[in-house]
Amino acid sequence: MKTYIKHDPWQIIEDQFRPDHNEFSESIFAIGNGRMGQRANFEEYFSGKSLQGSYLAGIYYPDKTRVGWWKNGYPEYFAKVINSFNWIGLDILVNGQRLDLAKVNIRSFERRLDMRHGVLQRSFVVQLPDGAEVKVDATRMYHLFASETASLQYKLQALTGDIAIELTSFLDAEVLNRDSNYDEKFWESLAQGQQGDNLFVSSRTKKTGFEVCAELETLVTGAAGVIEVGQTISENGYMAQRYRATVGRSQTLCIEKRVAIVTSENHAVEKLKTVATERLTELRAFDFDQLKEKQSKAWKAIWDESDIEILGDIAAQQAIRYNIFQLNQTYTGEDARLNIGPKGFTGEKYGGVTYWDTEAYCIPFYLATQSPEVARNLLLYRYQQLDKAIENATKLGFGNGAALFPMVTINGEECHNEWEITFEEIHRNGAIAFAIYNYVRYTGDTDYIWSHGLDVLIAISRFWAQRVNWSADKQQFVMLGVTGPNEYENNVNNNWYTNRIASWCLEYTLACLRNAERSQSAIFASLVDRLKLTAEEQNHWQHIIDNLYFPYDEKRKIFLQQDGFLDKELIPVQELDPLQRPINQKWSWDRILRSCYIKQADVLQGFYFLEEHFGDDTLARHFDFYEPLTVHESSLSPCVHAILAAKLGKTAKAYEFYLRTARLDLDDYNNDTDDGLHITSMAGTWMTIVEGFAGMRVKDGQLYLNPMLPPEWEGYKFRILFRGATLLIAVDADGYTIENISDTSVHIQTATEDFVLAGQDRKQVSQLR
Amino acid sequence: MKTYIKHDPWQIIEDQFRPDHNEFSESIFAIGNGRMGQRANFEEYFSGKSLQGSYLAGIYYPDKTRVGWWKNGYPEYFAKVINSFNWIGLDILVNGQRLDLAKVNIRSFERRLDMRHGVLQRSFVVQLPDGAEVKVDATRMYHLFASETASLQYKLQALTGDIAIELTSFLDAEVLNRDSNYDEKFWESLAQGQQGDNLFVSSRTKKTGFEVCAELETLVTGAAGVIEVGQTISENGYMAQRYRATVGRSQTLCIEKRVAIVTSENHAVEKLKTVATERLTELRAFDFDQLKEKQSKAWKAIWDESDIEILGDIAAQQAIRYNIFQLNQTYTGEDARLNIGPKGFTGEKYGGVTYWDTEAYCIPFYLATQSPEVARNLLLYRYQQLDKAIENATKLGFGNGAALFPMVTINGEECHNEWEITFEEIHRNGAIAFAIYNYVRYTGDTDYIWSHGLDVLIAISRFWAQRVNWSADKQQFVMLGVTGPNEYENNVNNNWYTNRIASWCLEYTLACLRNAERSQSAIFASLVDRLKLTAEEQNHWQHIIDNLYFPYDEKRKIFLQQDGFLDKELIPVQELDPLQRPINQKWSWDRILRSCYIKQADVLQGFYFLEEHFGDDTLARHFDFYEPLTVHESSLSPCVHAILAAKLGKTAKAYEFYLRTARLDLDDYNNDTDDGLHITSMAGTWMTIVEGFAGMRVKDGQLYLNPMLPPEWEGYKFRILFRGATLLIAVDADGYTIENISDTSVHIQTATEDFVLAGQDRKQVSQLR
Repeated sequence: MKTYIKHDPWQIIEDQFRPDHNEFSESIFAIGNGRMGQRANFEEYFSGKSLQGSYLAGIYYPDKTRVGWWKNGYPEYFAKVINSFNWIGLDILVNGQRLDLAKVNIRSFERRLDMRHGVLQRSFVVQLPDGAEVKVDATRMYHLFASETASLQYKLQALTGDIAIELTSFLDAEVLNRDSNYDEKFWESLAQGQQGDNLFVSSRTKKTGFEVCAELETLVTGAAGVIEVGQTISENGYMAQRYRATVGRSQTLCIEKRVAIVTSENHAVEKLKTVATERLTELRAFDFDQLKEKQSKAWKAIWDESDIEILGDIAAQQAIRYNIFQLNQTYTGEDARLNIGPKGFTGEKYGGVTYWDTEAYCIPFYLATQSPEVARNLLLYRYQQLDKAIENATKLGFGNGAALFPMVTINGEECHNEWEITFEEIHRNGAIAFAIYNYVRYTGDTDYIWSHGLDVLIAISRFWAQRVNWSADKQQFVMLGVTGPNEYENNVNNNWYTNRIASWCLEYTLACLRNAERSQSAIFASLVDRLKLTAEEQNHWQHIIDNLYFPYDEKRKIFLQQDGFLDKELIPVQELDPLQRPINQKWSWDRILRSCYIKQADVLQGFYFLEEHFGDDTLARHFDFYEPLTVHESSLSPCVHAILAAKLGKTAKAYEFYLRTARLDLDDYNNDTDDGLHITSMAGTWMTIVEGFAGMRVKDGQLYLNPMLPPEWEGYKFRILFRGATLLIAVDADGYTIENISDTSVHIQTATEDFVLAGQDRKQVSQLR
Repeated sequence: MKTYIKHDPWQIIEDQFRPDHNEFSESIFAIGNGRMGQRANFEEYFSGKSLQGSYLAGIYYPDKTRVGWWKNGYPEYFAKVINSFNWIGLDILVNGQRLDLAKVNIRSFERRLDMRHGVLQRSFVVQLPDGAEVKVDATRMYHLFASETASLQYKLQALTGDIAIELTSFLDAEVLNRDSNYDEKFWESLAQGQQGDNLFVSSRTKKTGFEVCAELETLVTGAAGVIEVGQTISENGYMAQRYRATVGRSQTLCIEKRVAIVTSENHAVEKLKTVATERLTELRAFDFDQLKEKQSKAWKAIWDESDIEILGDIAAQQAIRYNIFQLNQTYTGEDARLNIGPKGFTGEKYGGVTYWDTEAYCIPFYLATQSPEVARNLLLYRYQQLDKAIENATKLGFGNGAALFPMVTINGEECHNEWEITFEEIHRNGAIAFAIYNYVRYTGDTDYIWSHGLDVLIAISRFWAQRVNWSADKQQFVMLGVTGPNEYENNVNNNWYTNRIASWCLEYTLACLRNAERSQSAIFASLVDRLKLTAEEQNHWQHIIDNLYFPYDEKRKIFLQQDGFLDKELIPVQELDPLQRPINQKWSWDRILRSCYIKQADVLQGFYFLEEHFGDDTLARHFDFYEPLTVHESSLSPCVHAILAAKLGKTAKAYEFYLRTARLDLDDYNNDTDDGLHITSMAGTWMTIVEGFAGMRVKDGQLYLNPMLPPEWEGYKFRILFRGATLLIAVDADGYTIENISDTSVHIQTATEDFVLAGQDRKQVSQLR
């Protein structure tokens, strides 16, 4: 753990330079705009620990798979969003001495991420070997208002006397990935040059052939001092401009860099250069302060929709805003080809690729805080990859249009290569189906089912129907050889969650089909025809639903995580020697597998998704059995447990889980933030408050609220969007108010009431859960 | 499959050059002497497909582990016996044209491995681009009589007219492995030079620091022609001598190379060079023909003890001799630090490392065909590695002196890195214990138990006692998360074979302890004291034996391979579409795991080891249930099934399995012989005849025989050594004879009789099974 990030409601502050933790801070202070993003690397040269990283959404490279022992069916490559152009670079000599924070005497240092305005700031005062002192104020933005551009301002002030500055401002496309299985270079440079005062480089990714053009404008001004523009340096994939200036005592040299980075994902290859120039031209009307205003305004629109305020707990306040901020930096929902990488634009590992995290954890956040199109685009992402999912299932021996969506993907092809996950963690198909249900339930957009959803649902149902087999011994259907959400079990039989979500998929698909048959007969007829869907097939699905086996313990009246679970030694986590934890660092893999310990919600994940199927007594029995065996060693674990604990009135437990999820990165709970943030679990933090503490649900097509107040807080406020209305919910010790700040009326249920809240109206409820 | 190897009782013959299959032939014609060995690479330069390979027993390199996803407990490296010095090299120019079989016109070509005499021969006639024709006769031996030396003779005859020969004879220590995880070079050269007429090089392996010195003598003579000795070339790790000669029509140039290769495993580092020189000096008294005689004599001694003759089936005859020949080339049993690599000295893959193959398949062969010291050395190999096995278990979380022997090792440390095998295929511990029992049963050397065996048995029992856990649900002990011998199941619970062999280990250890307590009280007392063995611990072992769970099907009255086996779809292999086979090449891994298909004997392996515990009816029930579900995709599978089929009188099945095992490499059944031979399964072929067809067993300390004759054969003869006696057993349609060709009498049981056969006596039995 690291606890040096200062608590502040709107800012993330580091007030001292800690070279050993620089990679952690580079992750924490990362900025982005959904289209591109960057770790908080320094502009000036730095010879210390650093993971250089700038990323462009959707620009990936298929890195050749590395395995110890090849298994049939493994994919040939792992697609990863790769480190791209370094546009921030400034090489600075002060009186001939290089400005390098690893080599100079640091008098003061501060990094500050202003979440309200979307700006990264850094200030420091250093003394150079010759005694000269300079102060630097660096400000950087990835423009939310113009997502193909970014800018920075770098002010350098002479504190102790005249200084001679030699400055190189560069744009470098010759970058490498640290994470490269075979130390390959992923980019090939195509061109570089100068046009007017601007520099440009363009490169192409190997294999995938994405082309990227970046154009850079550098403006160097100073209150006084002679600025001399020196030579331009052009190398393969690298362009730089040199400047010389003399800066008098107390005077400031101001360097501004603006970049436009455009890719063949969004523009015709032959227009890339032109578009890049246009993007910079569009910014020309604004000085840096005006750009900051535009950025601030764009972020205000986001905060107006998605902010959560927590009263009486600054650490909690900072954490939830940080989570919301990073989610919005990562994904803005405008482009259905993009998705939410578990580390967003903050690191290379799992960079930019899609897991079931999106459907299970992120969609609820975007549904409630953004327009429905955003969640719809996340659904469309999978819809567009349906053909590849069918291909993937075919490769694994399935037929008849069955689809297995990949465990990890960027373009729809499977990337993961660990058999127990790749081939067996198939419950992901369930979450993808559930997300359709969840989206329709929240938005009421049933048309999506007819236009896109059923194609996906049918293909998924076809997979489940083939993935189960009839056990002559049990005289029931069974599902063998799976890995459930709890990845501390591999290749188990009849994982309850997987069986349950499979059965639910079949039920929901059949229900949608019945509905379509009744209300959308033309669509139904075309679907039946196009997909060759027979009555026999649907009957067979029903037969599976009616005869699927679920492991169950009659004595405890609980569903078992999988066959044989009760053969394990059931020793609660709290009886484990703390020195043995986390078990994923202390125990060999077989020992973990044999143990009863659960990495993240598994049976309870099913209770979370399908809560209306189970009474609170049943939930309580399962929670009390499984939670004490859970080590929560996945960042996705605490949130689901927090929501269920809140539901069961286990307030202290719920709050404990909130803490574990909310400051995971800020406090580096798992000691792994240096290689990037845990973006997808941040949506879980949001769920903990809104679904957990505030008890928000959609029931029978209506919004349901049933808030509680953690005793540690004075109150909390959040906004949600629901079917055209924007609601501001404020909870405190006296109860809660729901304020409809839109003009659209909305039907609301609470624990005690059921009412329509008109636009601009508010409702006070004095009763908390 | 490849079926071009000519059938011959004593020779392996290839009568045509097939450049595409050269790597296969290089494996097939590999030669060795237990101390070192070599693939059948050409002496002269060859630009075609070739896997260069010369290997030295025990000289290995720890190649850094390569994995896709690291799991706790994985070893840091995989030790492999590495490609070593190339001493055979001859670079030959004929009238200025390089002799390279990939580039010249081949008129005739023959490779011939003379198994009776232990000599590799190659003859070819080629036409060079200028029309000149030459004939080459190359002969090569790895001396069985002087195992640190090898020699070759290369005769080059001018067929069409005078030819000018330029010849370079070299010794090259700068060799690479093809199989290197990170393309590392494993050797560093220390010195090279010339002493008198001899060349020498010496090198050291990186990391492991083994030093090797090789000295080479080249002798070039010719009936006529002027031989001119040219310059010596010395480069880092490389020495060469150049010769020029003119060879007249029909005249022959004769090149002889003799090498001594000595290692720091067997000599002090500072003496390596001296010893190498001595070894060559020792050979100097003999010309090449005399060396061949010595080789022939050494091989005769082996054949006298271990030959099997098969009458009326040349393909079967050739195959069994080939298997016996390769086993003797690989391991001679003189050095307890060495073991039997699955590919012997014939390839890099798994080269030189030890698997449970040794204990399960090879020990019976060496017990019956070599003096007891050979099998004893194989036992000592594990005994010497007991500390490392305890270390290995400790690393995985076991305590109290529990040992887990590695899945793959060379020096006692685990090398394998696939969790489902490395950590879970723990039944290997059982085979290592069983080998002690098997050795004592065959040799009667009970002293071994007291001096070494019990230490190993107790450590293994301690492992099993901790590896099981009490199931509160079953009220029995269970063993979770294992991989049985059938590697087409991973991470299963209660694999019957593993549970059974574990229980047997505990029983045998307790029996040995009771025996020691009774008859070796001093040893027993010291053992109890040294290992802190308490009565409680032994009682606990008995408690486990009495309460261990075995999955069982009451209906079929069969033990189940593992929990849940009957949930699978039990479709016999013969109903599978042949296009789907072998399933390990056609199916994804999850599909294989979910299927009922068995890679190699699993439950039946237990019936093989522990046959006296089960009646023939029980065996038949299990054979009839499991064999039809077995795909035999391990080279170790057919032999066990052949033995059991023979026992059950299923003669046709037994013969079918014999064919599958005996010519596995000669006919390249699995299309994978190009990277090396399947040495350990060759011992299984021997077992098929001796234990299978001849029904040899040891029962109550006595030799038992109960032969049958496969109808495809006219008869067969084999020799076995048993407690000082040498027996020649000859089976034909009329019955069988047992001839005691030693002076030691031996007690023998047959199906009908029980008698003592005096030395030099013979016994005729007219009844076959």
